[in-house]
Amino acid sequence: MKFKTAKEIRRLIRAQEITNSTAGMAIGYTQANLVILRKEHAYDFLLFSQRNPKACPIIEVTDVGSPIPKLTAPNSDIRTDLPRYRIYRDGKFDEEVLDITPYWENDMVAFLIGCSFTFETPLLENDIPVRHIEEKCNVPMYKTNIQCEDAGKFHGPMVVSMRPMTSENAIRATQITSRYPQVHGSPIHIGDPSSIGITNIHKPDFGDSVTIKKNEIPVFWACGVTPQAVAMESKPDLMITHGPGCMFITDLLDKKLSVI
Amino acid sequence: MKFKTAKEIRRLIRAQEITNSTAGMAIGYTQANLVILRKEHAYDFLLFSQRNPKACPIIEVTDVGSPIPKLTAPNSDIRTDLPRYRIYRDGKFDEEVLDITPYWENDMVAFLIGCSFTFETPLLENDIPVRHIEEKCNVPMYKTNIQCEDAGKFHGPMVVSMRPMTSENAIRATQITSRYPQVHGSPIHIGDPSSIGITNIHKPDFGDSVTIKKNEIPVFWACGVTPQAVAMESKPDLMITHGPGCMFITDLLDKKLSVI
Repeated sequence: MKFKTAKEIRRLIRAQEITNSTAGMAIGYTQANLVILRKEHAYDFLLFSQRNPKACPIIEVTDVGSPIPKLTAPNSDIRTDLPRYRIYRDGKFDEEVLDITPYWENDMVAFLIGCSFTFETPLLENDIPVRHIEEKCNVPMYKTNIQCEDAGKFHGPMVVSMRPMTSENAIRATQITSRYPQVHGSPIHIGDPSSIGITNIHKPDFGDSVTIKKNEIPVFWACGVTPQAVAMESKPDLMITHGPGCMFITDLLDKKLSVI
Repeated sequence: MKFKTAKEIRRLIRAQEITNSTAGMAIGYTQANLVILRKEHAYDFLLFSQRNPKACPIIEVTDVGSPIPKLTAPNSDIRTDLPRYRIYRDGKFDEEVLDITPYWENDMVAFLIGCSFTFETPLLENDIPVRHIEEKCNVPMYKTNIQCEDAGKFHGPMVVSMRPMTSENAIRATQITSRYPQVHGSPIHIGDPSSIGITNIHKPDFGDSVTIKKNEIPVFWACGVTPQAVAMESKPDLMITHGPGCMFITDLLDKKLSVI
């Protein structure tokens, strides 16, 4: 699955031959988080993303009522081309499904949001080990005391992901991720978890705990879980997201997202 | 005026002691283009900016009905703190005024859009001559055959600004401006005007013609006139913009907009 194209993987997903995590598939193609909201919430959500570009970097917003991301994957259909979806009603998880065609309405807008998978590839290519990949688990994620900028009904704290590394690698990783503002960009914080409101680094709020070695410091990036958490807080009557790890694979090449 | 702060200059503007171009004032502070639209047009305009970030890089969007850019100049008022405004009705220029307080309505949204003033400072600091500054005129701007990505009712061609320079300087200027995605970022085109639909480089559609020396090539950047032109095309009943050259000066420091 690693060397297939985005289009090939999406076809397998549509046929429900792939129904789980897309991590490591179609290497080099940009994967994205999904948030679907009704048009009535779309302006506030888009404004939230403009005000919080590190937590909510937008890859594409579909036209109202269209399930086709015409700019980043024109031959795809957002309703069938992700392995798993979660349906939230009034801010509460309702069900997980493999196809959202029956749920699609003509006032819906899909937001594709940049994902840290994109910058992990160049980290690995620079010989910077990524611990949760080494330990074959999910990246650890934490709620912080950093408040996002409000936008209409959307407000809440920033969620961050953490990768432990040596201080030399933290410097190089800062350089590398700075080039990718569309997928969270540079780190939010390096070094002291308590200064951003994290009390126990070994107890992440989402994902899994990973080993932090003696010579390593924790490096934190804004995380795409933030907009989902923030949208959920506002309790929209209907919100649809990707299932955990089950991302949308666009036709964009990660390398082309680099600004320099 | 060069070494005053943004706040000091805004106070002089509010008192109508400055009523003309802000070029060269409050050096180091980020100046922005202004587009004010009613809320009904705001979603499409914000989506247009998301889809066309080089032509329409957003610095801030005010809350609906609020004339205060709370993130980039919290002590300012968008209705009084620009030297000159233009009022457009149904897509046609109606009048130029020094204060838009009487025109402000509680469903209005102000968009502050990045401006190439921000990247001209680091060009000059890198000893790259900027011809229209040397020749004390406006930057030449051209309509191109590059179509912007549509968003709802907003569509139209990209307008570009042009700076002639040696090919070595074009390379260095590409590096420098790449670091500033919030103010148009890297060039759109280098070298051949005809390939982007410009028939006569000496006859710009807006601004002034500048000298192109024998050893120089034209370098083109997406221009903040694009969103104004595009918004005007859609003929909103009311649109307010800054007067030419009469920008809004934020409290942001240009240097802080650099992503790397």
